Amino acid sequence: MMRIKVHLDKRLSESHEICIGYDFQDRIGLLIVKDHPANRYVIVTDSNVSGLYGKNFLEKLRDLGLPVELLEFSAGEGSKTMDTALALTSRLLELGVDRHSLLLALGGGVVGDLTGFVASIYMRSVPFIQLPTTLMAQVDSSIGGKTAVNLPQGKNLLGTFYQPKRIFIDLKFLETLSDDEYLNGVAEIVKYGLIDEPGFFELLEKEVPAIRARNRELLEKVIERSCRIKKGVVEIDEQESGFRRILNFGHTLGHAIEAASNFTLAHGKAVAMGMIAAAGISVESGFLTPAERDRIEKLIGNLGLPVRLPEGISQSAVLERIALDKKKEGSDLPFVLLKKIGIPFISKGVDKSLLEKILGEMKS
Amino acid sequence: MMRIKVHLDKRLSESHEICIGYDFQDRIGLLIVKDHPANRYVIVTDSNVSGLYGKNFLEKLRDLGLPVELLEFSAGEGSKTMDTALALTSRLLELGVDRHSLLLALGGGVVGDLTGFVASIYMRSVPFIQLPTTLMAQVDSSIGGKTAVNLPQGKNLLGTFYQPKRIFIDLKFLETLSDDEYLNGVAEIVKYGLIDEPGFFELLEKEVPAIRARNRELLEKVIERSCRIKKGVVEIDEQESGFRRILNFGHTLGHAIEAASNFTLAHGKAVAMGMIAAAGISVESGFLTPAERDRIEKLIGNLGLPVRLPEGISQSAVLERIALDKKKEGSDLPFVLLKKIGIPFISKGVDKSLLEKILGEMKS
Repeated sequence: MMRIKVHLDKRLSESHEICIGYDFQDRIGLLIVKDHPANRYVIVTDSNVSGLYGKNFLEKLRDLGLPVELLEFSAGEGSKTMDTALALTSRLLELGVDRHSLLLALGGGVVGDLTGFVASIYMRSVPFIQLPTTLMAQVDSSIGGKTAVNLPQGKNLLGTFYQPKRIFIDLKFLETLSDDEYLNGVAEIVKYGLIDEPGFFELLEKEVPAIRARNRELLEKVIERSCRIKKGVVEIDEQESGFRRILNFGHTLGHAIEAASNFTLAHGKAVAMGMIAAAGISVESGFLTPAERDRIEKLIGNLGLPVRLPEGISQSAVLERIALDKKKEGSDLPFVLLKKIGIPFISKGVDKSLLEKILGEMKS
Repeated sequence: MMRIKVHLDKRLSESHEICIGYDFQDRIGLLIVKDHPANRYVIVTDSNVSGLYGKNFLEKLRDLGLPVELLEFSAGEGSKTMDTALALTSRLLELGVDRHSLLLALGGGVVGDLTGFVASIYMRSVPFIQLPTTLMAQVDSSIGGKTAVNLPQGKNLLGTFYQPKRIFIDLKFLETLSDDEYLNGVAEIVKYGLIDEPGFFELLEKEVPAIRARNRELLEKVIERSCRIKKGVVEIDEQESGFRRILNFGHTLGHAIEAASNFTLAHGKAVAMGMIAAAGISVESGFLTPAERDRIEKLIGNLGLPVRLPEGISQSAVLERIALDKKKEGSDLPFVLLKKIGIPFISKGVDKSLLEKILGEMKS
């Protein structure tokens, strides 16, 4: 047997920038002109965002002389499919988009995940920029390069790790968010306080009224710190080999609760309950103090997120869903717990009886 | 505006090994056991290779105690679609394949490209190994990490750059190849002699009878040198930013000729004519000597590949196809030409009248 070594060792420089501002779409346009030359630009957005911001942004870029088009698809998680990805691909081919073109993902998590996925596989990848319009996308899904589409068998089953060239976060977009959409982002922000910075958690405790009032100055600060925490985790473990899983704090149970509600419950609300449950498990496992758990529950409640399981969601439906996820993952479903506020760790698994007890205590 | 830098600079060590041997599937099994532990293994193959080699290989791996399954799809370029990729994905989900599993692509270019593509997007990537069974896949498509599926609008329009964990080249597989399939690989081998090593070209000239007889010792040497040349190019320019395009020598016109034949002409034969035409253009452009061009044509003819355009293929159909590709690429269709045998360069474009002249001279 003969052996030939293929050396693809290399230094990859894939750094990019998150730019945060308020109502700065003119400046975004100028930065795109200056830093991201391309033969064609395509804004990809959904039917909600298109009317609110897409068409204006298209005009702004055209006024700068850029050759830009806008593609939209129906808003909602139901569009995060391979069918939509293929429909977008066909439109991109019609527009003559090639590897020297640039896609602009303008929207929430669905738009970002789907556009990123298409960008990563279209002609073996074209560059793209994230322009997240929801609080959740701004503090979470636009950062870190996870792209995906759903399959009938489950969420995010096909996807890639593919980084955007830049992320522009305009706080202006938040003004049109529904309360549920806004709270989806708030839940992720609380998570950052719990998994990384006790000081950030304390700031959130102090600023509950300003957060609820969507105070612009405070939001800018909170979004910046959230982005710094998320990017810090991603820098250490881009492809989720281990450490990046701490970002799933509250999400294992959160997803189970969301699924048990047949996705009628907003993601942020489900994650809020998942975080309280994870805090409860952390106490029962001898790590977190009961006082810390109470602080967590209090902050979550004060922010307008639920702290008890809604009536329609049965404990057994949640446990069933967890069992299903467990089966998928092999025997160990990794569970993120807290040693203290700001100090998470990944636990190999949690007893069913303990889960039952904690969920029982969370019944409304 | 606030700016946060996301630093994804890193040293990527993605080296892997090409192992070449004859009838060494037992050893391949042992190397997989030793070097590629996984919770599940799935051989992906096509309906031709499955009966010839797939089921035997499955038994060999099972005898070693590995948890392994085999998935097959219909043989042929027609299967290189997103539909097949999605069907494979469904089967992988049923089998419980996750990021700790390993796919084994056993087959020719279609199997390798498709399996690599699925591996690159399934749950945001699972590792895979290439086991190329055709000469073309062994010397060309299994090396370099290009994966893809075709769309109705064109070939390889969706895909990724995604490297296998290892490539096992077993010469035993070549014994069941049809002449056309074998010649597909021979054409690529001639290409390596033209774009990289004059010494290799001379070896091919000397060993025509042994190549035609599929002499095992010689083939082993020729495959090894071809793999070294291909991997050398890929190491310099993995994602085809520029240099890697020299691998397209003979392929721009080759693809046009293949398309003009409605894909009735084997790829290798079309590439052979494309190489002769590119050599002719190189002479007319004042680079290659006529004597060198004649040596190229002579070698290609002696190896059993065509040196004249077949009757059914019109010059104008080929030119039309070139014009179409040119439109797709923007104004400059890069054309790989030769300064000398072994010294290629990328030319920005070729005059239509020169193309016409060269194609005219190649009419049978």
